[in-house]
Amino acid sequence: MIKSETKIRVRYGETDQMGYAYYGVYAQYYEVGRVEAMRMLGFSYKEVETRGILMPVVDYTISYKKPAYYDDEITVITRIKEMPKGARLVFDYECFNASGELLNTGKVTLVYLDKSTGRVTSIPIWLQDALKPFFGL
Amino acid sequence: MIKSETKIRVRYGETDQMGYAYYGVYAQYYEVGRVEAMRMLGFSYKEVETRGILMPVVDYTISYKKPAYYDDEITVITRIKEMPKGARLVFDYECFNASGELLNTGKVTLVYLDKSTGRVTSIPIWLQDALKPFFGL
Amino acid sequence: MIKSETKIRVRYGETDQMGYAYYGVYAQYYEVGRVEAMRMLGFSYKEVETRGILMPVVDYTISYKKPAYYDDEITVITRIKEMPKGARLVFDYECFNASGELLNTGKVTLVYLDKSTGRVTSIPIWLQDALKPFFGL
Amino acid sequence: MIKSETKIRVRYGETDQMGYAYYGVYAQYYEVGRVEAMRMLGFSYKEVETRGILMPVVDYTISYKKPAYYDDEITVITRIKEMPKGARLVFDYECFNASGELLNTGKVTLVYLDKSTGRVTSIPIWLQDALKPFFGL
Repeated sequence: MIKSETKIRVRYGETDQMGYAYYGVYAQYYEVGRVEAMRMLGFSYKEVETRGILMPVVDYTISYKKPAYYDDEITVITRIKEMPKGARLVFDYECFNASGELLNTGKVTLVYLDKSTGRVTSIPIWLQDALKPFFGL
Repeated sequence: MIKSETKIRVRYGETDQMGYAYYGVYAQYYEVGRVEAMRMLGFSYKEVETRGILMPVVDYTISYKKPAYYDDEITVITRIKEMPKGARLVFDYECFNASGELLNTGKVTLVYLDKSTGRVTSIPIWLQDALKPFFGL
Repeated sequence: MIKSETKIRVRYGETDQMGYAYYGVYAQYYEVGRVEAMRMLGFSYKEVETRGILMPVVDYTISYKKPAYYDDEITVITRIKEMPKGARLVFDYECFNASGELLNTGKVTLVYLDKSTGRVTSIPIWLQDALKPFFGL
Repeated sequence: MIKSETKIRVRYGETDQMGYAYYGVYAQYYEVGRVEAMRMLGFSYKEVETRGILMPVVDYTISYKKPAYYDDEITVITRIKEMPKGARLVFDYECFNASGELLNTGKVTLVYLDKSTGRVTSIPIWLQDALKPFFGL
């Protein structure tokens, strides 16, 4: 399994008039979480794009349990639970506040897109190779 | 059934370096869609809050089929498919581009929160009454 | 002079916990305003990029007089007051709420960037030609 | 003088299709910078609001020298250069990338708003007292 923890502080501009971190802002927090998870593989998402692969999101689900508030320090826990097969990469999420309360859980599925053809492709070999050790392969 | 159509043009600041409307921006588009859907009931979401009810999102799912691009005019179709019961209000979504291609589908579930107590509450009578005619009740 | 009027409704996600439209959101509103102003010239900003010109912002100033609130319909008035010379294009702004109150005034200066060289360049001939009639030239 | 340094990594969702960090995102970066600057005074901006004071922005100017890119680590340097007098608090900014290149400079002016009256007020005594030692007063 791959597991990363990222701390993000809620910005004023991310709150809404309810005083909550806006429900839409977690798409960014989750994105930051998976960038950090990928850094554990030995390369940045930036490099992925440099190698000619784009990774757009195809599915995103999130369940909100409790709100986050301005200036809260959120811990985003990102997991790749299973060795990815085929053309999809799945990230699982949990967000906690500083008191350890679960704020939300979610899942984001990405695909691999060949930049030159614009077509969905299967997992690049170099990504597969980087992932294997984390799954005892 | 309640059904509304809202047109939204993709802003430059909403694109990302892939050239897509960022996957996180649809949370805002969907929010605009349900505000318009609620306006069909004879009041704005602003008034809902004035009456002491907040409606935070508890579940949000979205499946992306095709990207939207800068300056595209998106049609957000928002539906309340069933007369809401209990403590949840469910909105279903479809987004299309100007060529009529389906961009994404999604679902957002809201709860009612009593502003004075901060607690989840059941659907307010006045909201129930406004909804009924749309479901032949 | 070129002058355009654009109406924008404040989204929930654009408010902050003060209940104001976040001070940072006007960068987007102004951007929408200048896109509409350029459409009056007979082409979209999208086409400008297709013709190989990027137009990044080099200066941005804004003075806030009054806040906008959720669901307010804002009128963004965008002006090009003088025939642009050299390598800069200046847009002047005023935002009003539905009661006609002045919310803020601002100014955004753009430069022309040749996409192929990445260098600042002078105003393209075709843009100059499109602008001239508005300044009696 | 008060001076703080904050590091912020550019998120994917903050880029635009030019590949730049969107010009509008610096309003958030600057906000994060001044929150950190205020923390040096011994309290958070969150506490300022709890004490009944809101601090909306009344003026914001920024000059862009160079763009930031996705995943860049930006250093935001925030300064209060002079002991604030009257009803305004001025923050000066410089943003640098990891290579030490100056990305932009800016200035943000805030006022104090009494939450209970909704009126602009002069600097609260406790804020003045917290600021004094930094200016040798």
